[in-house]
Amino acid sequence: MFLKRLIWLLPLFISMPLLAQKNYNTIANRLIRLALTERQGYHLLGELCAIGPRLSGSPNSYRAYSWAKKKMMQIGLDRVWLEQVTVPHWVRGPVEVAFLAASGRKLAICALGGSVGTGPVGLTAKVLEVRSFDELRLRMQEARGKIVFLNRPFNPRNVNTFRSYGEGVRYRMRGAIEAAKVGALAVIVRSVTGKYDNVPHTGVMTYEEGIRKIPAAAVGLKDADYLSRKLIVEPNTLITLRLSCETRPDTLGYNVIGEIQGRQIPREVIVVGGHFGSWDKGQGAHDDGGGCMQALEVLSLYKRLKLRPKRTIRCVLFIDEEMTQTGAKVYADWVAATRQKHVAAIESDRGVFTPRGFSVDADSTILKRISEWLPLLRKAGIEWVRKGGSGVDIGKIKAVTAKIGYVPDNQRYFDFHHSDNDVFEAVHPREMQLGTAAMAILTWLISEEGLGD
Amino acid sequence: MFLKRLIWLLPLFISMPLLAQKNYNTIANRLIRLALTERQGYHLLGELCAIGPRLSGSPNSYRAYSWAKKKMMQIGLDRVWLEQVTVPHWVRGPVEVAFLAASGRKLAICALGGSVGTGPVGLTAKVLEVRSFDELRLRMQEARGKIVFLNRPFNPRNVNTFRSYGEGVRYRMRGAIEAAKVGALAVIVRSVTGKYDNVPHTGVMTYEEGIRKIPAAAVGLKDADYLSRKLIVEPNTLITLRLSCETRPDTLGYNVIGEIQGRQIPREVIVVGGHFGSWDKGQGAHDDGGGCMQALEVLSLYKRLKLRPKRTIRCVLFIDEEMTQTGAKVYADWVAATRQKHVAAIESDRGVFTPRGFSVDADSTILKRISEWLPLLRKAGIEWVRKGGSGVDIGKIKAVTAKIGYVPDNQRYFDFHHSDNDVFEAVHPREMQLGTAAMAILTWLISEEGLGD
Repeated sequence: MFLKRLIWLLPLFISMPLLAQKNYNTIANRLIRLALTERQGYHLLGELCAIGPRLSGSPNSYRAYSWAKKKMMQIGLDRVWLEQVTVPHWVRGPVEVAFLAASGRKLAICALGGSVGTGPVGLTAKVLEVRSFDELRLRMQEARGKIVFLNRPFNPRNVNTFRSYGEGVRYRMRGAIEAAKVGALAVIVRSVTGKYDNVPHTGVMTYEEGIRKIPAAAVGLKDADYLSRKLIVEPNTLITLRLSCETRPDTLGYNVIGEIQGRQIPREVIVVGGHFGSWDKGQGAHDDGGGCMQALEVLSLYKRLKLRPKRTIRCVLFIDEEMTQTGAKVYADWVAATRQKHVAAIESDRGVFTPRGFSVDADSTILKRISEWLPLLRKAGIEWVRKGGSGVDIGKIKAVTAKIGYVPDNQRYFDFHHSDNDVFEAVHPREMQLGTAAMAILTWLISEEGLGD
Repeated sequence: MFLKRLIWLLPLFISMPLLAQKNYNTIANRLIRLALTERQGYHLLGELCAIGPRLSGSPNSYRAYSWAKKKMMQIGLDRVWLEQVTVPHWVRGPVEVAFLAASGRKLAICALGGSVGTGPVGLTAKVLEVRSFDELRLRMQEARGKIVFLNRPFNPRNVNTFRSYGEGVRYRMRGAIEAAKVGALAVIVRSVTGKYDNVPHTGVMTYEEGIRKIPAAAVGLKDADYLSRKLIVEPNTLITLRLSCETRPDTLGYNVIGEIQGRQIPREVIVVGGHFGSWDKGQGAHDDGGGCMQALEVLSLYKRLKLRPKRTIRCVLFIDEEMTQTGAKVYADWVAATRQKHVAAIESDRGVFTPRGFSVDADSTILKRISEWLPLLRKAGIEWVRKGGSGVDIGKIKAVTAKIGYVPDNQRYFDFHHSDNDVFEAVHPREMQLGTAAMAILTWLISEEGLGD
């Protein structure tokens, strides 16, 4: 057993002095133990979720800013501030309903984010079911005056569920555009999830300049299948759709930011973050309240363990990732304008499941350096460090030596994503806390060792 | 991307002809896709769980044998048989209750497997709470005539939950022995789980020759904490315990076995298995109905894909792992008596969560050979192949070139283990099916390539 550990630690022995290794080993163990025993981030997530979902511009979002700022101050961060952002303001409103006009049988639907409403009377039309945009174009003659039902199943064959999401999400994103092009009145999209229940999954959709804006909704998988079967036996089924959603004028939002100033090189910054806004379904627990609380707890772990980092560690909770990423842009612009040096940015926005790896957007020398720390990261369940994409929000920051995405296991993520399933109870405390520990170890190593530039 | 894959496949290029590699790549992809799309093992698990839990000797166990045999025949295995085993027959009976004598306030308890009952009147006594056997020995004077309450929490600090289980399970296993030694009337053990709910977790306990057999029960975590607080304010609290459980004479059980005969070297056998018996709480979904259905589906995947293995692949569903492992012994004895050559035995008995690795009990040459297949196993989410323990049941087989344990992620396992939480709904279809695919790829490679002895 000892020999095996020794072999794992070998790369470390090569690149670091012995005393530093032993020290990092001890610190990694302490971070893991505190994360797993106190579960502070998990408990904070419980409080945050109790506020409710936090779409930018919503009353909850303002409650959540205050709550987060207060928590950062209670944790004892050196500086805490709100960074003002102009954010879009879309509201779902009280009504979203779809039903079979003949029987009144309801379908489990919800408006997609950004959709126009139908007006109070709603619209009633026949339905054209298609499986793809190709099929829609082939059958464009049939689409005029109808509701287009884009019924493309989530591909179960990919091992990586993010790939299936990538394949399916364009129907949600561009469904209203393509349907409007062929004269449809509205679009209903099969929810982009592999979980077979009847919960609709929302998410952002887009319109295109010069093409009519038609209402867009997602439907739960069971009702998508029901509707599909119904259309086989009654192709002329009429559906009534009523959505009260609307886009209001832009409003104010904030990035919530707190930092521990570096003890030796305070002008060099390492960002750890997640996105604070969420969809208005569920509680935004995995997406991305969990990631935010992981980022916040990284700093809190250092405070509780009285570890003063060499460089400045900054927790950034970005607003408005879900719609237009204005929070990320404002932060990136401020960093550029003030010429702050960012050594690294680490983002957790793939759910807070059991750790698998870190995906690093950096040159190969940096990647190699981070990979050498794998023996320490393995302690918290990290299996690999690979070159790859980092995250939507930190991706906007220019001139960072390394942008890093925390990658948990992805099998269950889209069961919850953007839906009423994404609640606090869907988060496993140990899975979340192990991820926090992994992020805290990596952040500490970057802070102490730098990235060699 | 292509280059990266090429690098991963490098070890394969060294040890295998190019054609074989391409072939294995294709087969691995087909196995994964079929496992993820049809989810046969998951659906079979749903049927098995609907029968109910399957403790050896229980009426459900006989229903489950017939069901499994029928399924094996429907899958079209070449040979299907039941191997007779004499199994212990412990029954919980209709009554298990503990309550505060004064108020009648119930505690969520269940008898431990193998415990004697209390008789219909039950026993009423004061409680001595201790945190360890050391504390029990120190306070032995206080234990006489009391119920010993072993209230040792599940250690949250270990990253590997099996380590915490190992640390805690001896209190369940030996609690009745140590309590009886100091004159206690019964023992109540805090459930060996880290999930904070009020569901008691059963599991086997033991008695020792010459030491009085006293009743033993587990208590849910919330009521363990309640009782602990109660004892602070009222140290003389009386508890009444009534358990109707009893051990009946040994009875009949069966290992359910089915195989596909090898197309080229049929006398060489590869076992894939799990344990078919379960505790009588929940449905034995993760422990180990899931592992059994993974093993069965490995063979079924080959049949559905019309892949005829070079060596014989045998699915063995072992009875009575939970109490005395008689099923494993009978199988091992038969293998030894008939001098069958077993190339490998693969067991899934750590829950059916997302894949992490394979733990290999074999010499280093064999370990190296299996490690070389990692690029193919990675396709199904396997991160590593390491030397380590295999499994309780296959561990009894002598003279196997490699004994291999399938290792899924372990963070959630003990939330369910041995309790009413371990039901079909606790199993995630994709996590289970990825594990099945991983086992099918490994089994196929061993069948085709052998293990070089």
